[in-house]
Amino acid sequence: MSDSRIEPRFHRAVPVDDTLERDVCTHCGFVSYQNPKIVVGSVVRTEGGILLCKRAIEPRKGYWTLPAGYLEQHETPEDGARREAMEEACATIVLSDLLAVYTIARLSQVQLIYRSELAGGYAPGPESTAVDVFRFEDIPRDEIAFPSVHWALDHDDYLQRGGTGQPFSNPAGQNGDARESVKRT
Amino acid sequence: MSDSRIEPRFHRAVPVDDTLERDVCTHCGFVSYQNPKIVVGSVVRTEGGILLCKRAIEPRKGYWTLPAGYLEQHETPEDGARREAMEEACATIVLSDLLAVYTIARLSQVQLIYRSELAGGYAPGPESTAVDVFRFEDIPRDEIAFPSVHWALDHDDYLQRGGTGQPFSNPAGQNGDARESVKRT
Repeated sequence: MSDSRIEPRFHRAVPVDDTLERDVCTHCGFVSYQNPKIVVGSVVRTEGGILLCKRAIEPRKGYWTLPAGYLEQHETPEDGARREAMEEACATIVLSDLLAVYTIARLSQVQLIYRSELAGGYAPGPESTAVDVFRFEDIPRDEIAFPSVHWALDHDDYLQRGGTGQPFSNPAGQNGDARESVKRT
Repeated sequence: MSDSRIEPRFHRAVPVDDTLERDVCTHCGFVSYQNPKIVVGSVVRTEGGILLCKRAIEPRKGYWTLPAGYLEQHETPEDGARREAMEEACATIVLSDLLAVYTIARLSQVQLIYRSELAGGYAPGPESTAVDVFRFEDIPRDEIAFPSVHWALDHDDYLQRGGTGQPFSNPAGQNGDARESVKRT
């Protein structure tokens, strides 16, 4: 890469054979298609409770989350959920079933969250400062990173207590805005 | 766009704060992140059977498919499935539940397929040359566009016959390669 490179510059235009405006590079015509992103993750259970990771990175650094992240190319959601548990918690997990499909429309994000069991130990990966196991009632609810983490914990607990109806979607009236998590006390 | 524009040219490099190689523009350093794409669609049932659309466009022009397509930005999967039924079959549908999550890893594609009921009429949209309703046993199985259409039809029929276990994933041993559909007779 030389220092003489030009700066990226995109304008909005409808490409040929398309119906919506996209970002088109003003220099070369490259169309940067924006697509919703898939987040894969899991509620990891072990004898002592539920495994959570303390985020080492923004957004929501210092808050607790499920092992979850973006699905990579050519990866199945199940493989992605297992990879994230290994990356963030150095944890091998055994997936059982699909707990929920959540949509954060504002972020164009679809989350596929599985249920799983921990198989072995755990330790913080590079994106976590801590990994710990909490009994459901001891989860630090005011230190949870994202609304959908609350949703998944509650939906998983509901199944643990004999509930049915999975896979769940967003709780009624909740679209995943960050401010919703503030409402919770 | 002037005729003096330069051609797009990308090389592979690992961006700062990333772990995988991405396509980086040689001209301006723009990183073209490739992410798996989400396809949303539905098995649409009506009294007479199942609604299918004959594709007016490639790939698999002339073959029958479910109303399905790429999820758009800021759209929920449910809204996307309804939009596709309207676009491809001019059909209003009432979604019930999630039938399946299929992965075509080769294409980096995750498909969310719902069950739905037709509410009103239907007609070919711009991407279809025909829309028709087939009884399950009359579906033209050798004119089906994609392997996952077979899977969804079979999984939906399994539920109709009292089966359980949704949402389903890829049938055992099937990863969605096009040649698999040729095996079917």
